[in-house]
Amino acid sequence: MPAMNAFYAQSGGVTAVINTTACGVIETARKHRKHIANVYAGRNGIIGALTEDMIDTNRENAKTIAALRHTPGGAFGSARYKLKGIEENRAEYERLIEVFRAHNIGYFFYNGGNDSMDTAHKVAQVSRKLGFPVQCLGIPKTVDNDLPITDNCPGFGSVAKYVAVSTQEAALDVLSMAKTSTKVFILEVMGRHAGWIAAAGGLAGTRPEDPPHIILFPEVPFNKRAFLKRVRESVIKYDYCVIVVSEGARYRNGKFLAEAGTRDAFGHAQLGGVAPVIAQMVRDNLGLKYHYAVADYLQRSARHIASATDVEQAYAVGRAAVQFALQGKTAVMPVIKRVSDKPYRWRIEEAPLSRIANKEKMLPKRYISKDGFGITEAARRYLQPLIRGEDYPPYINGLPRYVTLTKVPVAAQLKTKFVV
Amino acid sequence: MPAMNAFYAQSGGVTAVINTTACGVIETARKHRKHIANVYAGRNGIIGALTEDMIDTNRENAKTIAALRHTPGGAFGSARYKLKGIEENRAEYERLIEVFRAHNIGYFFYNGGNDSMDTAHKVAQVSRKLGFPVQCLGIPKTVDNDLPITDNCPGFGSVAKYVAVSTQEAALDVLSMAKTSTKVFILEVMGRHAGWIAAAGGLAGTRPEDPPHIILFPEVPFNKRAFLKRVRESVIKYDYCVIVVSEGARYRNGKFLAEAGTRDAFGHAQLGGVAPVIAQMVRDNLGLKYHYAVADYLQRSARHIASATDVEQAYAVGRAAVQFALQGKTAVMPVIKRVSDKPYRWRIEEAPLSRIANKEKMLPKRYISKDGFGITEAARRYLQPLIRGEDYPPYINGLPRYVTLTKVPVAAQLKTKFVV
Repeated sequence: MPAMNAFYAQSGGVTAVINTTACGVIETARKHRKHIANVYAGRNGIIGALTEDMIDTNRENAKTIAALRHTPGGAFGSARYKLKGIEENRAEYERLIEVFRAHNIGYFFYNGGNDSMDTAHKVAQVSRKLGFPVQCLGIPKTVDNDLPITDNCPGFGSVAKYVAVSTQEAALDVLSMAKTSTKVFILEVMGRHAGWIAAAGGLAGTRPEDPPHIILFPEVPFNKRAFLKRVRESVIKYDYCVIVVSEGARYRNGKFLAEAGTRDAFGHAQLGGVAPVIAQMVRDNLGLKYHYAVADYLQRSARHIASATDVEQAYAVGRAAVQFALQGKTAVMPVIKRVSDKPYRWRIEEAPLSRIANKEKMLPKRYISKDGFGITEAARRYLQPLIRGEDYPPYINGLPRYVTLTKVPVAAQLKTKFVV
Repeated sequence: MPAMNAFYAQSGGVTAVINTTACGVIETARKHRKHIANVYAGRNGIIGALTEDMIDTNRENAKTIAALRHTPGGAFGSARYKLKGIEENRAEYERLIEVFRAHNIGYFFYNGGNDSMDTAHKVAQVSRKLGFPVQCLGIPKTVDNDLPITDNCPGFGSVAKYVAVSTQEAALDVLSMAKTSTKVFILEVMGRHAGWIAAAGGLAGTRPEDPPHIILFPEVPFNKRAFLKRVRESVIKYDYCVIVVSEGARYRNGKFLAEAGTRDAFGHAQLGGVAPVIAQMVRDNLGLKYHYAVADYLQRSARHIASATDVEQAYAVGRAAVQFALQGKTAVMPVIKRVSDKPYRWRIEEAPLSRIANKEKMLPKRYISKDGFGITEAARRYLQPLIRGEDYPPYINGLPRYVTLTKVPVAAQLKTKFVV
């Protein structure tokens, strides 16, 4: 088979290690120039393919590509752009194949979450129908850790480590001041649908007196009375109370706490922020002094405190996707298979995209303690290895030396424009 | 002179490196047992002295004391407790001397900010008057960086590094998603009175297109029109806009933006958070998608990303305070004297507490760019060395191995109780 080009795109919310995966894809492809001549990266994800706006990665030197391994964010640009069903929007799929054909692209690597796996799956089907079969490989990426089959998702381990370390550190601060100052500290973390990230906060301590004293999961309906009782007890017993709350925490009726009806001076509903809602509840009902932090993007971009396990796995799934492609596989995704907990061992396997697309893996009930405010030993066994190891970026003058690509565009071949 | 004991207390908001200073004090004192028999640490700061509630540091082994160097928070407990003037509350000062006399305490090391330096100064005066002269040494500590004479304050360099790194990382995230998602990102940082911490965010970039695109300082009256204009320009020119805002940002009339009148569903004024106020302003006036983070305690407890310069200086001021005491000095504080910018060199000198107590060093005008939204080259020259170097804590199972003291209490000698 003559060498063809590959197309690589990042999709959805970025992570501290999605570029590590890009590094794994490009470095592995470069070892097989006979089969993969070049990797074209979509500028702003799949939009780059639709608009024929691609970056020529052969124009980036080896040192730059290697530096992707330790650079957070999405180096080529990512996008929240979901292709519709084939029947609803055949034009988009046909355009993709048109671009792939024009640029001799035989491999499609799509690095994202559930939606992206669905897209990769559909592109595989459509390309075959249109007589230009492209090998479509999904590559897992999501801080939400909600892809099925794979034991965990690259991106999650690093956000988990960030949340556990931050909880541990802030708790030491609060405890040392609790006598005369703040008694309740609230850390808001991501996870709109599932409590994986909030659960990671639980790694900060192991004994009942250790922080966090309360975790609020999206999976456990919020019970104000039980919550306030627990805050009071924690302050009485331990002098302070550290709370990790998922942005997706909600009432039994499904309403998010973050939408609890806070209004600005003009009466407009105020968006965002479950932490201030919890804080105000604590103040109004218990009269306790509080502080809150909202980690937001800091948590998923914190490459400076990335998990070495996560970095290694993020690279491995990128490398494996290329290897699978070279073996002639299509419509599959590399998954992480846990072989043992202690010592932690894992390997890469493959799973068909059809079994992954559009499915969500929720935090299992057995990971949440009976009272609903903490994690179980089973959860610890699962989570603990994922945050293990440090993989520091290089520094210069006190700041991480993150790389910026030159982003030389691939010359357009098509005369038609496509508007997304 | 026969050996006497020393009293050490932590005061006010803690930092990532206040325990490093404690480590410097205790390790240095241990080298001079002939003169300093033991270091008693106040539990919860000066309250521990008033209530005769002290921790016997001789009961902590050398390894534990060494581990204080890399442990954030206040290991002995800190307090926001300000002694009043001598005339208003002579009883408190007399009680302090009574406790010092009962425990043979000849050295008083007070590790804090402006208020604490005032207290240390007064204790020196009162102890002499009461015929039990105690050598009183102030030791600088504050993330606010607002103590006079000293070039900078231990604690600041690490929060500055945290803010610069976090700004850099979150900006990479936002930029990569800006095409289809968030265009404006706001990071709220500490600094109610002075913009030192916000200024540190400016280190994340050097060119106009680099983040942060806007810094909002307490020193520059907030101009809504100019601000919104700049946000719009940044999004047009660079595709995104990263804003670092000080919690102390305020209008010309002195009113904090954080008090801008947000109310909850019951009409109660909502406390805290300048970031949501800025975010809402951006949404309501420009219709741009935003995200915001509130760093809060995470920034001042982030020992995992401490500045090596800061750690070294925090230790040095603790060591110097003990050395000054052994040289018979009193009512002084070790200060950091900058010898040169490039290469950065510094040494420890001494300054009288009378020149430090109750004085604030504000961010100089020449550090703020003409448009009021950024920092100048002079600011960079000053700030840059302070964040330099990494000083990672040891890790175990993916988490920093922070130390907890055994905190063996010193047996009480007095029959009277003192209620604070």
